[in-house]
Amino acid sequence: MNEGFVVWITGLPCSGKTTISRILEDALKRRGLKVEVFDGDEVRRNLSPDLRFSKDAGETHVKRVAYMSKLLPRNDVAVIVALISPYIEIRRYARGLVENFVEVYTKCSIETCIQRNTKGLYKKALNCEITDFAEVQEPCEEPENPELVLDTEKQKPEENVERILLILRELELIG
Amino acid sequence: MNEGFVVWITGLPCSGKTTISRILEDALKRRGLKVEVFDGDEVRRNLSPDLRFSKDAGETHVKRVAYMSKLLPRNDVAVIVALISPYIEIRRYARGLVENFVEVYTKCSIETCIQRNTKGLYKKALNCEITDFAEVQEPCEEPENPELVLDTEKQKPEENVERILLILRELELIG
Repeated sequence: MNEGFVVWITGLPCSGKTTISRILEDALKRRGLKVEVFDGDEVRRNLSPDLRFSKDAGETHVKRVAYMSKLLPRNDVAVIVALISPYIEIRRYARGLVENFVEVYTKCSIETCIQRNTKGLYKKALNCEITDFAEVQEPCEEPENPELVLDTEKQKPEENVERILLILRELELIG
Repeated sequence: MNEGFVVWITGLPCSGKTTISRILEDALKRRGLKVEVFDGDEVRRNLSPDLRFSKDAGETHVKRVAYMSKLLPRNDVAVIVALISPYIEIRRYARGLVENFVEVYTKCSIETCIQRNTKGLYKKALNCEITDFAEVQEPCEEPENPELVLDTEKQKPEENVERILLILRELELIG
């Protein structure tokens, strides 16, 4: 491989983005690829420590991540982004910025996400203890034409990663 | 070469950072290296459109650039940063984050910088038309131990780039 790409995993909080991104990272590294993962918390701490959860702030943050994502693939690095990024418009912006953009939607019912939730964000948002958790209080906009929709309720993470690898092979982004 | 590095060029506005970074970029690309340049305006537009010129805002911005600079060299990309970054503390932060950090100071008297200035920032700042141009209204803190000090008043840019290449060879970062 001498081309990078971005696997942009989008979905509700606790829909399985991080789990899948870690397994995918390992799978790609085993194939000898250079890989960087942009996952919510660490990236937010480094790029947007000043931002809270709100629509505008979220957009600014996603734009920053998109800009970073652009620089790595053109230097032959595979990038995995695991980010709630709930708005179609901003994902379209990211797609326009990045070559070889593969959008993956981790589809999962909000009830299951709430059950899985460990950080208590859902509970706080639903109890109105926090009022700017846009991803719960405004519904996520489902991707219109993602390259892949993963069912993270019925399928195991390993199976879902196999599906991502399959599509990367079909797109001739990995061998 | 299979290691990246960061050449962090710091100095007053109009002290020659951009000119040197462009010539250095060409020189490194001719040697077959992958290179990314982070220069003031474009990076600011993409990473920190919300920030104005002030000490705090500048620090936040420099931290963002430092975080991005960290990701590329570990994927074998040479990074050139051309950023005013006037404070020792924040440059020390960047150095701590990045492996193979080469600090280059473009030394130039403020009088010459003012003469060279095309964007009118100095004039506005000195006339108090803008009041948050930290780099003029507060003196830049000169680097304590930069890898290299370039005299951009007496030396030609090409000569200064040769000096950067020499130190990169000495550090065994290029062949």
